[in-house]
Amino acid sequence: MAYKENYPSALLEDAVDAISSLPGIGRRSALRLALHLLKQPVENVHHFTSAVARLRDEVKYCRTCMMISDEDTCTICSDRSRDSRTICVVESVRDVMSIENTGQYHGVYHVLGGIISPINGVGPSDLTIRELAARVSGLVSELSGCGEDASGVEVILALSGDVEGETTSFYIYRQISRFGIRVSSLARGLGFGDDLEYADELTLGRSIVNRQEFKG
Amino acid sequence: MAYKENYPSALLEDAVDAISSLPGIGRRSALRLALHLLKQPVENVHHFTSAVARLRDEVKYCRTCMMISDEDTCTICSDRSRDSRTICVVESVRDVMSIENTGQYHGVYHVLGGIISPINGVGPSDLTIRELAARVSGLVSELSGCGEDASGVEVILALSGDVEGETTSFYIYRQISRFGIRVSSLARGLGFGDDLEYADELTLGRSIVNRQEFKG
Repeated sequence: MAYKENYPSALLEDAVDAISSLPGIGRRSALRLALHLLKQPVENVHHFTSAVARLRDEVKYCRTCMMISDEDTCTICSDRSRDSRTICVVESVRDVMSIENTGQYHGVYHVLGGIISPINGVGPSDLTIRELAARVSGLVSELSGCGEDASGVEVILALSGDVEGETTSFYIYRQISRFGIRVSSLARGLGFGDDLEYADELTLGRSIVNRQEFKG
Repeated sequence: MAYKENYPSALLEDAVDAISSLPGIGRRSALRLALHLLKQPVENVHHFTSAVARLRDEVKYCRTCMMISDEDTCTICSDRSRDSRTICVVESVRDVMSIENTGQYHGVYHVLGGIISPINGVGPSDLTIRELAARVSGLVSELSGCGEDASGVEVILALSGDVEGETTSFYIYRQISRFGIRVSSLARGLGFGDDLEYADELTLGRSIVNRQEFKG
């Protein structure tokens, strides 16, 4: 049912407009949130608004991997125990957090800041692909300075499995493969615990083609 | 699955804390919203935070009906075409907006600001019941000054049909019935278009007891 809007106050309407501009929050939820905030102590609302404003105003991005950071170098890049020659390329900050939560990865990251998407007007130059190429190039010359070859560097393309992700992976591959490094991508297949019966055909097909040796 | 939290930045964590303090927004959604805001132009984020802060800082409540308002008297109370002797008592601002949206009501309102709920620590003195009684008393003496009697005043108790709503209605009834005014409550029954088969027993029972004359 359409929700007619007769706001009793312009202030309320402005707040609802602002809150409903957030993704996934409709005007009805925005009204509920605005009325909730109205009932809170003034300090709480100021704490809320200043936390949001400070995030936008003061956030930094790691100079190396473009991850959100409080310093110029993020905690991951500045962690000496991590393998700085293995670079996992992801679309967003959230992907870094997801992979970190697995506890399975000990390399570093490179945050693209998006994915190539002509429909959304996002081209390669809007992403940090140039920075990635420079970073890889720098690593390779550093290695050759130590007498090692480029195969000591690995770039993992950890992008989504849809067309845009594949396009972006392919584009990046063409930009960095000339350095002679190893380039890999995430394994695709059935999820852990997935039922064959309910798997989609593409995933199941890939799972068969890319079958792995059984380690009993 | 539990979502482990390794925030790459204290600013981000503070913003997620703040956003997830809103009702119905979990930490995962809050992170999504925080990252969305990070991608927006600074002006947009400032517009968002200032709209929210201004709402809390500058909002007024109508002196007569306690509705949110930009002025000391709300647009409904100051509208001469509305019947100021019919007062619809509601729990919240949202209820006023809902009833206004029906276009079926031409009286005025009284916003309680909540409902009596011992579990949530809300007692009668936390609500605007005293103000309602004073308002009714004032209306009645105004009428008697014009030689009319108190039955020209009607208070509609438009509270929810649960135990807390009923308790609050009963409490208010006891406070205002002594003025000799008319007190009514919302009709309860099957919703428009409801199927008998799926109606709950209490609603169906009330619908039968309070059956209305059929106007063919």
